[in-house]
Amino acid sequence: MTTCLFCKIIVGEIPAQKIYEDEHIIAFLDIHPVNIGHTLVIPKKHFANLYETPNETLAHMMVVVKKLSIAVKSSLGADGINIEMNNDPIAGQIIFHTHLHIVPRFDGDGFRHWHGARDYNRGEDADVAQKIKTHL
Amino acid sequence: MTTCLFCKIIVGEIPAQKIYEDEHIIAFLDIHPVNIGHTLVIPKKHFANLYETPNETLAHMMVVVKKLSIAVKSSLGADGINIEMNNDPIAGQIIFHTHLHIVPRFDGDGFRHWHGARDYNRGEDADVAQKIKTHL
Repeated sequence: MTTCLFCKIIVGEIPAQKIYEDEHIIAFLDIHPVNIGHTLVIPKKHFANLYETPNETLAHMMVVVKKLSIAVKSSLGADGINIEMNNDPIAGQIIFHTHLHIVPRFDGDGFRHWHGARDYNRGEDADVAQKIKTHL
Repeated sequence: MTTCLFCKIIVGEIPAQKIYEDEHIIAFLDIHPVNIGHTLVIPKKHFANLYETPNETLAHMMVVVKKLSIAVKSSLGADGINIEMNNDPIAGQIIFHTHLHIVPRFDGDGFRHWHGARDYNRGEDADVAQKIKTHL
């Protein structure tokens, strides 16, 4: 028996307002929306996060995200769309089943983007880039 | 002559700390990072945003985002990763060339996620879901 909330939604054990479904993916309304129309896109198979999700699943999720974003924007008269994916608790992940957020934005909704505390010191950016590249 | 900042980075007219490059995509450090290691993944071909980017390009971008996220996290000892994509000015898009953000997160970095003003009223969620579905 699964204890994953999203797996329970997939099998219909917990209700959700479904927007889309295909063989590999479902999409439904977030019950605590940032804005009305906030939609989650998830694979039917359980993977914990971005790092553990197979490439072909991620690729397909992103194509569905595009299709749904266009529909969310036009149907609700939104002025923009944020796509978000939170991986690990520090990043705001609460349900440990891979999901992409589609967040419709409206003029005047007041949400502000993060601004970093500081830019790079001289040469620091090259060091950071090098460090990342050695892990590829 | 292009006036797009990212197109100028692609052709080498403006410098950037590149992390990754293949036939279709480059990735480089954001010069105004939310956190050190904040990386942008962009297609070499110019598309304005999610809505206008071809499916195969988006699919490939997402696979590269996964690969780079794992490298960013492990190389910098990050505690989590946010993936973000801002479409249209209200959503925080500043450069109108499709890009995905990889934002490494660190315990105590203090960035807070958005919380919506309200949840759905009774029946409202079904109406919203129906409205979106008619636009698919």
